[in-house]
Amino acid sequence: MYYGQGDIRLEEVAEPEPGPGQVKVRVGYNGICGSDLHEYYAGPLAIPTSPHPLTGAKAPVTLGHEFGGWVEAVGEGVEDLPLGSLVAVDPIHTCGQCAPCKRGATNLCVMAAFHGLMAMGGGLSDHTVVERRMVHPLPAGLDARQAALVEPMAVAFRAARRAELESGQHVLIFGGGPIGLGAFFAARWFGAHPIVVEPSGDRRRTFTDLGATTVLDPTSDDVLAAVMDITGGVGVSATIDAVALPSTFAGAFESTARGGNIVMVGIPHEPLPFDPIAMFMSEVTLRASNAYADDFPATILAMAAGAYPTDGWVTSIPFERLIPDGLEALHAGRAMKILVAFGEDLS
Amino acid sequence: MYYGQGDIRLEEVAEPEPGPGQVKVRVGYNGICGSDLHEYYAGPLAIPTSPHPLTGAKAPVTLGHEFGGWVEAVGEGVEDLPLGSLVAVDPIHTCGQCAPCKRGATNLCVMAAFHGLMAMGGGLSDHTVVERRMVHPLPAGLDARQAALVEPMAVAFRAARRAELESGQHVLIFGGGPIGLGAFFAARWFGAHPIVVEPSGDRRRTFTDLGATTVLDPTSDDVLAAVMDITGGVGVSATIDAVALPSTFAGAFESTARGGNIVMVGIPHEPLPFDPIAMFMSEVTLRASNAYADDFPATILAMAAGAYPTDGWVTSIPFERLIPDGLEALHAGRAMKILVAFGEDLS
Repeated sequence: MYYGQGDIRLEEVAEPEPGPGQVKVRVGYNGICGSDLHEYYAGPLAIPTSPHPLTGAKAPVTLGHEFGGWVEAVGEGVEDLPLGSLVAVDPIHTCGQCAPCKRGATNLCVMAAFHGLMAMGGGLSDHTVVERRMVHPLPAGLDARQAALVEPMAVAFRAARRAELESGQHVLIFGGGPIGLGAFFAARWFGAHPIVVEPSGDRRRTFTDLGATTVLDPTSDDVLAAVMDITGGVGVSATIDAVALPSTFAGAFESTARGGNIVMVGIPHEPLPFDPIAMFMSEVTLRASNAYADDFPATILAMAAGAYPTDGWVTSIPFERLIPDGLEALHAGRAMKILVAFGEDLS
Repeated sequence: MYYGQGDIRLEEVAEPEPGPGQVKVRVGYNGICGSDLHEYYAGPLAIPTSPHPLTGAKAPVTLGHEFGGWVEAVGEGVEDLPLGSLVAVDPIHTCGQCAPCKRGATNLCVMAAFHGLMAMGGGLSDHTVVERRMVHPLPAGLDARQAALVEPMAVAFRAARRAELESGQHVLIFGGGPIGLGAFFAARWFGAHPIVVEPSGDRRRTFTDLGATTVLDPTSDDVLAAVMDITGGVGVSATIDAVALPSTFAGAFESTARGGNIVMVGIPHEPLPFDPIAMFMSEVTLRASNAYADDFPATILAMAAGAYPTDGWVTSIPFERLIPDGLEALHAGRAMKILVAFGEDLS
């Protein structure tokens, strides 16, 4: 339960039961997201302190929006989801009424509320209840750890999709955390050639171990020179900026070919150096990629095809160790993706 | 002949003749562009003062890049263009070798040179010679004045295309000059509903006379409130900014719906207020539209279908009056689009 900055408590809560159209999920794993860290160390930010207009939720809330598990019960009217099904959950609650909702852009719902942040009863719990619309059954061959990874991988999948990557193109990826890694997997899935930029040696090694051929250290490598060398002076077809710092944003404009795409998937926290004349001359397209809308099925498909190996970057911890081995370990840079396991057989 | 700032001279020059693959055009009309004014009052800007890398041209050059006329002679190897054909001319000379050229993005050619600015022998002349590739024959029913209007209308057509306008959508257009007007015509052609913002009363009247139903004065109307009223609080699907001032750029972000498109077709001359967090949250796509690439045929098609009436906004003057009735009249805001006529029968 998130009470406030630095105040997360492991508590017994009432077990939720599904109402009409809802699904009760027994959580297998719940990943810890960078936004959870932000809430813990700098929040409350997204977590409401007065009732959220859609959900009515406010702190204290149960955290956790990256989770997968098994269908344990369904509410009235839910007839297409066998009990025991392994599922991933799209955690965005929506109003269903606004213009973005009506065209399927659920991430842009004017009242969007993330389960585990702006709604009660998140995934860092033995059980959680969500709407049927949010539940995506997984095909055979995927496990509960992978189910919990679908959410962050869908964030990155959408970024790669919005970069309009085509087979054979070069794509520059700034940032080697989970989203940068997801963009790397998605870029490979689309047949593109990723160039990854990441200052941490541990993270660069993770990419290399996963088959990345070009992984640059921005503190010692000349990224622009490397990009121009690889692309014959043309620049990359697209840049995915999973960092959104002034240096990466400027680097994206320098490195992207005329007419190419820049996708900002990192959440910016400060002004970025925007040069309208350079943008005009190059006809580069700049777009953000915010969470996901219809991206879960395609991400799950790619995952089922083996495009998302988990070697070397995913760690599991028991629920009881959430704070020291989860939040604090991530904050100290000692891990890349930590999944909190529910049930002794999992961790 | 442009010699430098404030120094344009009407001179006799040698009549050009077409080499292999070239076409000699007898000019009917040549429009005066805002960039010609910039060169006259604030230049040289685009006009090279040392030899251009592609064309070798440098001042003095013959101005004029918005022109149409008739095929008077063709060079060796040009066999598909009957003498006397009415043609519009895409004025961009390209290298044909760079990555953008190879995929047809001629506007992004790394050595792109505009005829009449960075190449010798522009359209403000009785005759001019261009490459066959640059020549677009016009269908029956169009005249030489319209031929000269294809170029600026193609600029605006590309902007509307990059705004991804669909039938029934609302589009906000900042700027009621020739490019804003071209965007208005293109938006209507795509079935969209344009909302035009222009401070000049004369220009607003021109739009109204041409059938515009929503024309706002930013000095007295609350543009954002009007947009929200018209769109039921959602915002426009796209904004085409043909002004690119801080006020219009900020207005574009305020007025564009989540997930919409902002196209910057005005050339920015100063820093613009870029808010990366607003961009991230709204997933608005921002792109520039720079000149035209493959836009001439589609523009000509729309023009032949009657989508570009010339009533009330196009003036013709004789060549001899270029400076007082052309450059100076435009600079003083006394006209919208001025076509310089060659031959007494035309003016």
